[in-house]
Amino acid sequence: MINRRSWFKKSAAAIASVPLVNATFAATPSAPLDSTKVLGTPPKEVGTRSGFEKLERLVYAREASSASATPLELLNGIITPSDLHFERHHGGIPTIDPDRYALLIHGLVDRPLKFSLTELKRFPAESRICFIECSGNGGRAVLGRGAPVAEEVTAGQVDGLFSTSEWTGVRLSTLFDAVGVKRKAKWFLAEGQDSAVMSRTIPVEKGFDDAMIVYAQNGEPLRPGQGYPVRLLLPGWEGNAQIKWLRRIDVSDTPFFSREETSKYTDAKTDGRIEMFSFVMAPKSIITSPTFPTVLPGKGWNEIRGLAWTGHGKIAKVEVSTDGGNRWRHAALQAPVLSKGTVRFRIPWQWDGKPALFMSRATDELGNVQLMPGVFADNRGPATFYHNSAIRAWKVDASGRVTFGQNELA
Amino acid sequence: MINRRSWFKKSAAAIASVPLVNATFAATPSAPLDSTKVLGTPPKEVGTRSGFEKLERLVYAREASSASATPLELLNGIITPSDLHFERHHGGIPTIDPDRYALLIHGLVDRPLKFSLTELKRFPAESRICFIECSGNGGRAVLGRGAPVAEEVTAGQVDGLFSTSEWTGVRLSTLFDAVGVKRKAKWFLAEGQDSAVMSRTIPVEKGFDDAMIVYAQNGEPLRPGQGYPVRLLLPGWEGNAQIKWLRRIDVSDTPFFSREETSKYTDAKTDGRIEMFSFVMAPKSIITSPTFPTVLPGKGWNEIRGLAWTGHGKIAKVEVSTDGGNRWRHAALQAPVLSKGTVRFRIPWQWDGKPALFMSRATDELGNVQLMPGVFADNRGPATFYHNSAIRAWKVDASGRVTFGQNELA
Repeated sequence: MINRRSWFKKSAAAIASVPLVNATFAATPSAPLDSTKVLGTPPKEVGTRSGFEKLERLVYAREASSASATPLELLNGIITPSDLHFERHHGGIPTIDPDRYALLIHGLVDRPLKFSLTELKRFPAESRICFIECSGNGGRAVLGRGAPVAEEVTAGQVDGLFSTSEWTGVRLSTLFDAVGVKRKAKWFLAEGQDSAVMSRTIPVEKGFDDAMIVYAQNGEPLRPGQGYPVRLLLPGWEGNAQIKWLRRIDVSDTPFFSREETSKYTDAKTDGRIEMFSFVMAPKSIITSPTFPTVLPGKGWNEIRGLAWTGHGKIAKVEVSTDGGNRWRHAALQAPVLSKGTVRFRIPWQWDGKPALFMSRATDELGNVQLMPGVFADNRGPATFYHNSAIRAWKVDASGRVTFGQNELA
Repeated sequence: MINRRSWFKKSAAAIASVPLVNATFAATPSAPLDSTKVLGTPPKEVGTRSGFEKLERLVYAREASSASATPLELLNGIITPSDLHFERHHGGIPTIDPDRYALLIHGLVDRPLKFSLTELKRFPAESRICFIECSGNGGRAVLGRGAPVAEEVTAGQVDGLFSTSEWTGVRLSTLFDAVGVKRKAKWFLAEGQDSAVMSRTIPVEKGFDDAMIVYAQNGEPLRPGQGYPVRLLLPGWEGNAQIKWLRRIDVSDTPFFSREETSKYTDAKTDGRIEMFSFVMAPKSIITSPTFPTVLPGKGWNEIRGLAWTGHGKIAKVEVSTDGGNRWRHAALQAPVLSKGTVRFRIPWQWDGKPALFMSRATDELGNVQLMPGVFADNRGPATFYHNSAIRAWKVDASGRVTFGQNELA
């Protein structure tokens, strides 16, 4: 069994090993003094970013287990550019030939069928803007009770295993109807064709509800890091269950108890029992601006901005405190507020030049509320860092320097 | 004066010069026979597309005047990946140093002010998913009365000067309040700092309504081709007025009659008069699938998919005809339907194996309807191709081959 202190050490080591400025960037371009006097360049087949902007993910890569985190502090709105979407792989990214790809649906069905990619694309399609969050998101960086957490961390380092896209594909219920799922079916195994053969068992109800078999992301075909050519999408549920490189769905009346739902992705309770199949992501929010490494230029008005989401439906409200959690004010929510989508929230804040601790708290339409870290941890067993949806705090010192403020919270 | 026939020749020549497969693509990758037996690759700082997918824009580039068109037929949902967003430049893409950038607002104001990029980002922000369409979109390719139009063209070649993003920035009204726009102000000049010094005059009402000064697109900083670091966003209005690389706003009581609103971007009427300042984009739709170069595999069910939009507010309905315009059925509209946004529509269609002509017709919440090309042209003067929002048709022959069907329409 691992305790919180050792997780923190792992986490600190992982964070320390990430270079904030990477040598792969080209040199900053030079701009003419008067751009109106110089003929500009023509467009290219595929556009590029400005050389003045440094956008990249944090990469945590070991032999087989690897991850990349979205730089939340550098982004605006809710859409994550597809090349900055977080990734979490258990056996690396496989290369799959779309012409040889097929999805098999079998088990408790009337007609086992294989669907080619072309066939999947011919079914009635749907698009949906929704978030995907790794169930381990923020857990290691934030759960520091008994040991201090790192303070010089960005929002992406804290909670960057979270991204939002417009996904397009076919409803799993459409395919379930095609194969004729039997009435006694209760679960289905979703299996990937990566080298980890990542597998999870999902309740059939989710398959008939809003699960999707997706092949497109933000308009374009799914990227290899997101499961090209096809992944499972389970709106509002933990990321690891949304199997990438999906090759097989086995319909059953019992769970399969796969490796990734027994050795991992379970949640310890205070009474020592272990909760399995804890799929739904709780309401959560994180302020993305101002955050580390921002230094406020002085007293005066700022707009506090952040992201909020819940796997239970719609976000109902986001409150912000700038006095350490005593007084809370309602932030404005950017329309449209979509079910299982991501909401950008914003609220003005006049900084008086004194040290301050500020944080956000999300509430969803079912009344679920983000908890303070202490309360949150008291409701959890000691050996879990998954589903850490506790309130995240930032602090500013008298010089205007903003750092992660989790150590100040009870 | 140029007649339609010469436009068509220009258009056909431009289209003929665009290679559909470009030599810049790397060779198609090879995939292992069984991807579960090969350790995958770790993520990178910036993700990449699958080597099996060929996504690029059509580029029309001359010395200074250039454009790139979004490959609509390859995309799903409504979001356009930022590197595939259409572009239209009058003096190429300038390189602008964000640290030296400033936006000047002067003229009929109480306090002329210059705003740095950092200052613009500190103002209260807003995000909005909306389309931008070039007022010349589809004009040349589609307006063929008197001469046949090309049939072997993709949806992107027809109407690819149209894209959709989530934009973030500050409302122009917020800046107007900061400088104190005087009551007698009626217009403002928006001026770019490209080598064309692209300039348009915009009614002050739009500035106080929903105009925005945007610095972000689909989460990331605006790209150089979209006006980095700052462009004007005029939701629902023609693209050329949404000045990129915006450096100056001059508030006035009269229009400025700039080059690009006198020599260009005006619309001839049937009585010989010229309409200037025709900003709002009419309701329009285009089927994106199945379209050229698709060949239907045989009789049976297809899902007709397309995009619809209007500058007047929300799309109210999209109807689809598969029998040359006799019978019309309502397509399903993908939620959320956003004001001045883009709507993905879909409708099933059982092809009977016989030649067919199919098309879509958008109606907006004000009751504006897309017209048949003949009716549309009869209401327009002979010397205009801007704002061509006429119905677009596709045809399928008995072999299943789909081509652009505009020549079949009255």
